[in-house]
Amino acid sequence: MTQPTAAMIVIGDEVLSGRTRDANSWVLAKDLTAIGVALREARVIADDHAQIVATVRELSGKYDHVFTSGGIGPTHDDITADAVADAFGAPIDIRPDARAILEAYYELGALNDARLRMARIPDGASLILNPVSQAPGFKLGNVHVMAGVPAIFAAMLASVTPTLQGGLMTLSHAIRVALPEGELAAPLGAVAAAHPGVGIGSYPFYRGGLGSTLVARSTDRAALAVAVQAIRDMCAVLGTTDLQETPPD
Amino acid sequence: MTQPTAAMIVIGDEVLSGRTRDANSWVLAKDLTAIGVALREARVIADDHAQIVATVRELSGKYDHVFTSGGIGPTHDDITADAVADAFGAPIDIRPDARAILEAYYELGALNDARLRMARIPDGASLILNPVSQAPGFKLGNVHVMAGVPAIFAAMLASVTPTLQGGLMTLSHAIRVALPEGELAAPLGAVAAAHPGVGIGSYPFYRGGLGSTLVARSTDRAALAVAVQAIRDMCAVLGTTDLQETPPD
Repeated sequence: MTQPTAAMIVIGDEVLSGRTRDANSWVLAKDLTAIGVALREARVIADDHAQIVATVRELSGKYDHVFTSGGIGPTHDDITADAVADAFGAPIDIRPDARAILEAYYELGALNDARLRMARIPDGASLILNPVSQAPGFKLGNVHVMAGVPAIFAAMLASVTPTLQGGLMTLSHAIRVALPEGELAAPLGAVAAAHPGVGIGSYPFYRGGLGSTLVARSTDRAALAVAVQAIRDMCAVLGTTDLQETPPD
Repeated sequence: MTQPTAAMIVIGDEVLSGRTRDANSWVLAKDLTAIGVALREARVIADDHAQIVATVRELSGKYDHVFTSGGIGPTHDDITADAVADAFGAPIDIRPDARAILEAYYELGALNDARLRMARIPDGASLILNPVSQAPGFKLGNVHVMAGVPAIFAAMLASVTPTLQGGLMTLSHAIRVALPEGELAAPLGAVAAAHPGVGIGSYPFYRGGLGSTLVARSTDRAALAVAVQAIRDMCAVLGTTDLQETPPD
């Protein structure tokens, strides 16, 4: 058993201009980590047909799962569905199942042509339900096309993650220590080299005094425990036993 | 005069695992927009030598400017400087100018081998000063290598942006209106089609009632004003004159 891989594509001029801060990549990263899927990269790209098509093609060929956020609403700048369809060479049109969802949601007469654009679903795609505002996302090939509005993205993702084949869980053990990185870097590098099956990261902190958060990650619980003990021993040698630990769940 | 283009590369396993939420892309996006440089894409990638080399090569060939954040500290997982050097085929070693900065900062004896790693600067690079914790970033070719810690990234960026050749400013005019996207999508699409030199985006909001924020963007102030008036007229036709506008500075 290994870990399936994934990539995120955030689609939106408003993110690249700095108007909006992307929130969806972070939610996806946490949710995938929790089920043992490895997010390998995330990209923010423009509302540009050619860029969406090229990025979807590249990443869907490279990773097990791809997730997109943004560009599936009713307005002219919502071009993601058509671009993803093009990326797979799939025809796209208003589909009866998606249309039925919108018909049930909108009052009589309110389902105009613009809103019907949200029922444009590529042939061969399965719908991703939207409990917030009904207009569905979809899954085509290995690409999950979801909304950009954070509350809707999160709701859609909550229905998608149970359908994914999870992999080995990456267990993470954090140790916060009041030693600056420069003082522990050499022995920490030796610990990392001695435990190649465990990824060890070091992140400086500045609040409440200078220090480092050392994070050991592995899919192997026993190997993780051995590496964590080696980090504790290293801190003791450096004269510090006051460690704040956050073990894996 | 046009707009120079740019890309961001966020380097860090901790971002892909969801442990840390990237803050630097958003800061860069806003700062570049403010000087007329167009951020075309942003990527988050792992602490992986080959992935960093490949991404730096691809994006530095594609855009006028590239910015990286993360991986330039003293610990074993800080591999960005060497990877960027490799991407350009540049030799890298401890450089006297960077070493002198660290020697002036650290107390006698504290500048150990690990900290000296932060003086590893590729041949041909210019330093990017770090007013927070001194260890410098650098610019090699068109790639600006900066720290991942948000306060340091922002401080480094503040010294870099004045050195960039800015381009035409993208002016942005936002109009917040209490109409759902589905009701204005058709006429808004017509406005967008009639004003091809102005980018028009629509973003739904849910707080304080359902509505849409319509954002018109252009480097041409006169064209922007005409498109904005067309949006106002459209809203009036739809029966709404209560608009909250945020004009360009």
